[in-house]
Amino acid sequence: MIGVVCLNPALDITHHVAAADWAGVNRPSAVHARPGGKGLNVARTLHAIGADVLVLGLAGGITGTGVIDGLAGLGVPATWTRIGGETRRTFTVVDQAAGGSALFSEPGPPVGDDELADFGVAYKEALDGCTAVVLSGSLPPGLPPDTYAGLIALAAAAGVPVVLDAHGEALLRGAAAGPAIVKPNLAELEAITGRPLSGAGWPAVAAAAGELRAAGAQAVVASLGADGLHAVTGEGSWRAVPPGPVAGNPTGAGDAVAAALAHGLALGRPWDERLRHAVALGTASAAAPVAGEFSHDDYARVLPAVAVHRDGAG
Amino acid sequence: MIGVVCLNPALDITHHVAAADWAGVNRPSAVHARPGGKGLNVARTLHAIGADVLVLGLAGGITGTGVIDGLAGLGVPATWTRIGGETRRTFTVVDQAAGGSALFSEPGPPVGDDELADFGVAYKEALDGCTAVVLSGSLPPGLPPDTYAGLIALAAAAGVPVVLDAHGEALLRGAAAGPAIVKPNLAELEAITGRPLSGAGWPAVAAAAGELRAAGAQAVVASLGADGLHAVTGEGSWRAVPPGPVAGNPTGAGDAVAAALAHGLALGRPWDERLRHAVALGTASAAAPVAGEFSHDDYARVLPAVAVHRDGAG
Repeated sequence: MIGVVCLNPALDITHHVAAADWAGVNRPSAVHARPGGKGLNVARTLHAIGADVLVLGLAGGITGTGVIDGLAGLGVPATWTRIGGETRRTFTVVDQAAGGSALFSEPGPPVGDDELADFGVAYKEALDGCTAVVLSGSLPPGLPPDTYAGLIALAAAAGVPVVLDAHGEALLRGAAAGPAIVKPNLAELEAITGRPLSGAGWPAVAAAAGELRAAGAQAVVASLGADGLHAVTGEGSWRAVPPGPVAGNPTGAGDAVAAALAHGLALGRPWDERLRHAVALGTASAAAPVAGEFSHDDYARVLPAVAVHRDGAG
Repeated sequence: MIGVVCLNPALDITHHVAAADWAGVNRPSAVHARPGGKGLNVARTLHAIGADVLVLGLAGGITGTGVIDGLAGLGVPATWTRIGGETRRTFTVVDQAAGGSALFSEPGPPVGDDELADFGVAYKEALDGCTAVVLSGSLPPGLPPDTYAGLIALAAAAGVPVVLDAHGEALLRGAAAGPAIVKPNLAELEAITGRPLSGAGWPAVAAAAGELRAAGAQAVVASLGADGLHAVTGEGSWRAVPPGPVAGNPTGAGDAVAAALAHGLALGRPWDERLRHAVALGTASAAAPVAGEFSHDDYARVLPAVAVHRDGAG
């Protein structure tokens, strides 16, 4: 079983309007509300590829109930710790005439020490049955930046490897706790190192990834959009590149990569196969309009076309 | 007790953003969620002026629970009929840099015949304790346009006078069922009569109101924004004009007028006093940023300054 931690899930509400009036009254032609946030996207992707997954999350208020009910409706198993605050919403307006969209993202609820302690009890219980854990997404306001580091230490004590997908201080402190894999994107690596990396080439990315390894992460998989993945691990370095340019939804792509890395870790796949699946699933998810969804046909089609190179090898 | 029917309430969600990016990602600095819809604004106003009020509404899903909890938190008594559909949301983005706002208004849930029948049972029970009933706001999709007419007939059978604030077919069919008062605004009168009325003068408005009386309404109170109210009743016609221009929130103003008219009806106030209170409460509510709220000081200050004229009288 793969445990997926969702400390700051969201109810993603989308309104489709024929032509948005940003200074007036709009009557959407279609309204969708679905569970979201990076952790839940990872969990939905794992569920869709047939992995045994358990969401471990915090949820509160009516919006938390909406997230819980929505995820249950999708058949994804979950253990929720109820909190007193209100789970956040995101609100997206899709402007069909302009072809664009606007996103409004609420910050998330306060979480009390006692509520985090309750979560810790559920998390420790679940670790017994886990072959891997994914920690993904932002922390709600008020939770300390070493929250993920604490969860990684608990997993290490239980012998369970962790994939960490976070940013900023939560990523830095989490890396220091020794997770099996951290999965930063280029912007996250730039924020950590303070150096511009876009267009800087593979060696610069490898050096930045090396810093996160030096900080404590066992392996660093940098996700570089259309340039694929660059892995720096204790067994060597790899590059995995998709067959063509990746258009579409970068949030969904990053979450799918995290899902595939955890799946490969749980299955004990070697690094080259782990990365091949991660690129294929990320590419298929980028092509889907909704994060956490993808076409199985796309996944199967891209998989054999991913180019995986070992640095310093043939 | 004044019964206030809310067949299509809403959870009004407001995001305040420093400077909206209508093509990108926004992180609101403040988020509010409160029960809304015209009926609930009327009920909150009646509650705030100390009237004994009972909301009779339909609510479903997590958003319905949000409306129920929110109204209970405001101390407004309510009897809810739960439905299978999801109560609607409205979403307002307040753009602090531009000083404007955009509203996205969901259509509301489907309502089944059995659910409307359940509501009818609760409504008939409540009528026994009512001195007046307010029917206000849009009908959710799927409810027939004679829904208000049916509720007016039930009230008439119980000897309870009704204030109807609706538009289009629901207003026309409702008027035919003989409510004590219908309260159209200028746009609603124009839609009913098919004639432009803005700037057309009192005789044209009086003629349009006369058509609604001829259709069956016992009295018609047309709300004309800054020009106040024009009442055409079986006892004569009145004009009631606020002391100065009314700026602000027209939705809140119209709902406050409906609340005051029902309150005056329940108290047996004569028409001139009924209209004086309606204009004062409408003016105070227009000045408040949130529909259903007003300053008691504004209400008390405007009340003696309202000019009430009886047509054809000194």
